[in-house]
Amino acid sequence: MQNRFIDLYSDTKSKPSPGMRKAMADAEVGDEQKMEDPTVNRLRERVCELLGKEDSVFLPSGTMANQIAIRVHCRLGDEVIADRTAHIINAETGGPAANSGVMIRPIEGPNGVFTGEQVKAALRDPNSRNAPRSRLVSIENTSNGGFGTVWPLATMQGVAKVARDAGVALHMDGARLCNASVKSGVKASDYAACVDSLWLDYTKGLGAPVGASLAGDKALIKEAWRQKQMLGGSMRQSGVIAAAALYALEHNWDRLAEDHDNARHLSEGLANIKGIQIDVPRMETNLVFFEITKPGWTSAKLVDACRERGVGIGANTATRIRAVTHLDVNRKDIDTALKVISDALAA
Amino acid sequence: MQNRFIDLYSDTKSKPSPGMRKAMADAEVGDEQKMEDPTVNRLRERVCELLGKEDSVFLPSGTMANQIAIRVHCRLGDEVIADRTAHIINAETGGPAANSGVMIRPIEGPNGVFTGEQVKAALRDPNSRNAPRSRLVSIENTSNGGFGTVWPLATMQGVAKVARDAGVALHMDGARLCNASVKSGVKASDYAACVDSLWLDYTKGLGAPVGASLAGDKALIKEAWRQKQMLGGSMRQSGVIAAAALYALEHNWDRLAEDHDNARHLSEGLANIKGIQIDVPRMETNLVFFEITKPGWTSAKLVDACRERGVGIGANTATRIRAVTHLDVNRKDIDTALKVISDALAA
Amino acid sequence: MQNRFIDLYSDTKSKPSPGMRKAMADAEVGDEQKMEDPTVNRLRERVCELLGKEDSVFLPSGTMANQIAIRVHCRLGDEVIADRTAHIINAETGGPAANSGVMIRPIEGPNGVFTGEQVKAALRDPNSRNAPRSRLVSIENTSNGGFGTVWPLATMQGVAKVARDAGVALHMDGARLCNASVKSGVKASDYAACVDSLWLDYTKGLGAPVGASLAGDKALIKEAWRQKQMLGGSMRQSGVIAAAALYALEHNWDRLAEDHDNARHLSEGLANIKGIQIDVPRMETNLVFFEITKPGWTSAKLVDACRERGVGIGANTATRIRAVTHLDVNRKDIDTALKVISDALAA
Amino acid sequence: MQNRFIDLYSDTKSKPSPGMRKAMADAEVGDEQKMEDPTVNRLRERVCELLGKEDSVFLPSGTMANQIAIRVHCRLGDEVIADRTAHIINAETGGPAANSGVMIRPIEGPNGVFTGEQVKAALRDPNSRNAPRSRLVSIENTSNGGFGTVWPLATMQGVAKVARDAGVALHMDGARLCNASVKSGVKASDYAACVDSLWLDYTKGLGAPVGASLAGDKALIKEAWRQKQMLGGSMRQSGVIAAAALYALEHNWDRLAEDHDNARHLSEGLANIKGIQIDVPRMETNLVFFEITKPGWTSAKLVDACRERGVGIGANTATRIRAVTHLDVNRKDIDTALKVISDALAA
Repeated sequence: MQNRFIDLYSDTKSKPSPGMRKAMADAEVGDEQKMEDPTVNRLRERVCELLGKEDSVFLPSGTMANQIAIRVHCRLGDEVIADRTAHIINAETGGPAANSGVMIRPIEGPNGVFTGEQVKAALRDPNSRNAPRSRLVSIENTSNGGFGTVWPLATMQGVAKVARDAGVALHMDGARLCNASVKSGVKASDYAACVDSLWLDYTKGLGAPVGASLAGDKALIKEAWRQKQMLGGSMRQSGVIAAAALYALEHNWDRLAEDHDNARHLSEGLANIKGIQIDVPRMETNLVFFEITKPGWTSAKLVDACRERGVGIGANTATRIRAVTHLDVNRKDIDTALKVISDALAA
Repeated sequence: MQNRFIDLYSDTKSKPSPGMRKAMADAEVGDEQKMEDPTVNRLRERVCELLGKEDSVFLPSGTMANQIAIRVHCRLGDEVIADRTAHIINAETGGPAANSGVMIRPIEGPNGVFTGEQVKAALRDPNSRNAPRSRLVSIENTSNGGFGTVWPLATMQGVAKVARDAGVALHMDGARLCNASVKSGVKASDYAACVDSLWLDYTKGLGAPVGASLAGDKALIKEAWRQKQMLGGSMRQSGVIAAAALYALEHNWDRLAEDHDNARHLSEGLANIKGIQIDVPRMETNLVFFEITKPGWTSAKLVDACRERGVGIGANTATRIRAVTHLDVNRKDIDTALKVISDALAA
Repeated sequence: MQNRFIDLYSDTKSKPSPGMRKAMADAEVGDEQKMEDPTVNRLRERVCELLGKEDSVFLPSGTMANQIAIRVHCRLGDEVIADRTAHIINAETGGPAANSGVMIRPIEGPNGVFTGEQVKAALRDPNSRNAPRSRLVSIENTSNGGFGTVWPLATMQGVAKVARDAGVALHMDGARLCNASVKSGVKASDYAACVDSLWLDYTKGLGAPVGASLAGDKALIKEAWRQKQMLGGSMRQSGVIAAAALYALEHNWDRLAEDHDNARHLSEGLANIKGIQIDVPRMETNLVFFEITKPGWTSAKLVDACRERGVGIGANTATRIRAVTHLDVNRKDIDTALKVISDALAA
Repeated sequence: MQNRFIDLYSDTKSKPSPGMRKAMADAEVGDEQKMEDPTVNRLRERVCELLGKEDSVFLPSGTMANQIAIRVHCRLGDEVIADRTAHIINAETGGPAANSGVMIRPIEGPNGVFTGEQVKAALRDPNSRNAPRSRLVSIENTSNGGFGTVWPLATMQGVAKVARDAGVALHMDGARLCNASVKSGVKASDYAACVDSLWLDYTKGLGAPVGASLAGDKALIKEAWRQKQMLGGSMRQSGVIAAAALYALEHNWDRLAEDHDNARHLSEGLANIKGIQIDVPRMETNLVFFEITKPGWTSAKLVDACRERGVGIGANTATRIRAVTHLDVNRKDIDTALKVISDALAA
């Protein structure tokens, strides 16, 4: 087993760096609920600048950002259109229905990226008393369930046009919007201009320990504050964690290009391992998905074998595995991981 | 235009017959909420006999039966597995999410009939904190969105086994269970034995004006009474309408075979009309779906043209039309309708 | 025991008269959901005339009317101001919270009738992020929990003014609005002019077997139709029961004065029975509440003793009993009931 | 104006001390959702020890702890019994109804402390189909709306007995349980033994910046983790804030006695100021409530006048003010505050 555990399980595994910890320790703080936390207030402004939105609110998690956005946009019985792989469908414990009473109409975009035409086809007849009311389209950029695929700006604009024409709101789950922006060269604010609400996550590629920011216009964020309190997301001197978020935005955004390079390197290496199948060009950002094809092997078996050898990866389905690059993993670690995976499969 | 309007729009269009009206006028009644309505009580027992269930409750509609069943089986954030064409997804105004806070995981059974294997694949990992909790499977027999297809008993038993093994409840939307039973020769109680809850509708093929009965074990129906009150379904001297339901069960069940014959006759006739495409064998019961293929025609155009000529049919999609046989439509009416459709298309 | 059971338990116990039954048997019907039921359509118009509202919708129950109104007026987490004795708080199985996610702020009006000042004091600070949002005031006229008290029109106007000024909607539970109107001489439409939504019940003093009508402006009723479907209240040939409602409006409204006279006669008689305490002037309409003060007696004991002797009354609390006059009970029945109660207590 | 702003607005205003900040900066962390954060895990165990419960979970706020507890204990339409001043009623933006679909039945304990008898009287008939179902009693210790009053252990045990006998769960909002325990000398675990679920807040008297811990048995906390994710409370390397909570438990619990002394000193001082009325003995812990009786003055006016002079206090009603002592305020600050208030009123 190699010395340090190389954790490719998720980019949520990254830990705060010494610089980030210092920023937290030195943060000037106050009661965020009274708008008296200067660090939280600074983050709020920084996010507005970055995304070109009127206002933003700091939250304990990106999941809460999704849940709040759905609540603000929708009423009981409304329908949200989203890709069938969306985080809101599969990984928020049923929150959209439980918290907001909304139905979800799943569509199937290739790699989680769907078109305006698909949205149009999924819209309900607004005159029907029996159909749910189409009220929101939610997109995820990059799409985790779609192998980290980046939304082309034109595709997002196409969806936005259809939504606008239909009087339906548009929301973006930006858990990995930073990756999408770095990869595509499209400014985050250009993506943001397509949507009515969106959020940034600080705990994934950006490497902060806690939090996300939801952004939108003033009225939306005003209502979001109420929902934040209702869901239990109001904090006090949250400047201690907002400081890490600010540090992350400043120091860890551009470096995501390295994670993408490392992911490409990992993908290419995996393509050369017997018993593994991978669609290399499909892995655009920092998420790497591959199939185990060696007879008698499941993803769980390979995950266990790698863990014993000091490398963390995750089972996505019975035969599919996900490995994620992030700021705590360097090129040499990738080479080590490739060797470990290869050895494990050969054993 | 032929004399009497022939309404094939839906089997919900049938009107109470003189015999049924007499039964209503003569009904002995009381306050159903105090269990003092003898007619409602008789219906309750009749349904238990027919379906082999411990208890049943009379409701204003089948939609309420679905909504109550979901509430009784599920908790906030739970997930219901159903065919993507299901009534609960498309025609209950988002009720499952609005009323019960449940997510729906749509699967795609050919003609609305899915298998135990498909259910197994749709079940969530019960150990996940992030996935919704799989709690209920809902089947529709016959499947309206599946062209009136009858569930083979063995298929339903297969689904029941998977559900039972997973500790997941099974519910049947029996809006047209009477048609399924008459067509297949499978007793309603044999279908009912597969599921934890189910309902019969009196307002479709059975020809009564109002109501449905939900059946299950005693504990389920006890709780259903509470939900009935909570949703606003508690009535008073509802024996006046329960009398029609009892009459319908006695007089209108077996005669559904005629509707099926008429639907087959209609399907075969349609197959001979140029500009119409229909998959005749797929039309098993009283629902007839066909595509309009004549250039320049939409379903809406044909619907309008037929209505002007005295025949009611319904647009299902831009090119798909639904026509439904029922007890107010006889063989001669079908011949008339065929002529009208043919003439309309030729005009 | 006297011959016929005299049921003073509730005005919901009245049964359809022969005339009403005939109206039902002869009703012209159609599918109400397609707006094709002429009787339902006629009822819809009749209610609009009677209440001076733009539109109305026929429903299976008054409870559903309350639940729909709350859903249409409110959003998740909003607060409804109502008297602590209100039906929506105590007798709808928690529906306001379960169906609409609203909090209720109970206030304490003497006899269920509260003032604009009380409403003003109960309004939340609209700038608070932490307080629920005040969105609806709900009044019940007559107030059942307030001993059948009639709202003075000026009091209701006072509440309406406060609500309007605060941008809060006003709803009226009109389960016994007919009694209020007959007693006070205030037109139902004058009461209705104070509120944004209200409903009439046909199954209480008016003597019909099933149903209620919710009225408001066009936009409200349009949305109410969606909620009706979502809650499971959509029916088909409901003209069969709407006919009874129409009959009731025509024949049974003015005669409520008799019920009030009978209730007054009953109250005065009870005042003369030893072991009973009653505040005669407080019993304004058809609801009569009295306390049992005879040592060793509870309301349950008296209820049982009377039932054995052929008279139905109901226990309201451990020592309070409710008796209700209605169209199936005449003056002679009241005299019999008084004798039975007196005998029972003396035994 | 005196030099440093003395903030008596709330004990939530306290800021992390240097020692606490160092603990945060040095915290060993991991992904809490994978149970890999050693600091979060240590906090989890510490809370179990302190409260004598099987398990606990760290959350972003106490409000989320309340919301999760209600969700775990209750189903749609259930009723929660709580004092009318409770935080869940007045300060969680309607969360109980919005998140869990529960009704609240407010009772009126003197100073927020109610008895088993009062609970018994508030329980609904479990056999009623129309009444909400009583499912949970929630108590707040100390009671904020009750002037910081400490629950006598015997009173809580009395409530617990009634709840247990009725099959109703018992929950404690422990936002200031530490104050209750320090003041009464009753161990937190003795209070905790009365209830099925409870939480501790770290951001009030204990002086940490973010978070609360919910405790209960293993099954409850397992389900709480699902609800935490559903509401958006799942964090990642939350050890950075859990470290502050651990530090607070170790260093700031016993010192609450000082805050109580300071509050008493403040109360006595206020009693000597003309134009102020205060019930000194009623102020048992760190919350001080007083009435402004000087003609022409409102609480808002005094709050503003004090703020200008460098002292923060809060308007509770139009004439009632709240001032709170905490670890950032010492005895000298109290003397200064008294002088400022006196001067302000005299001006």
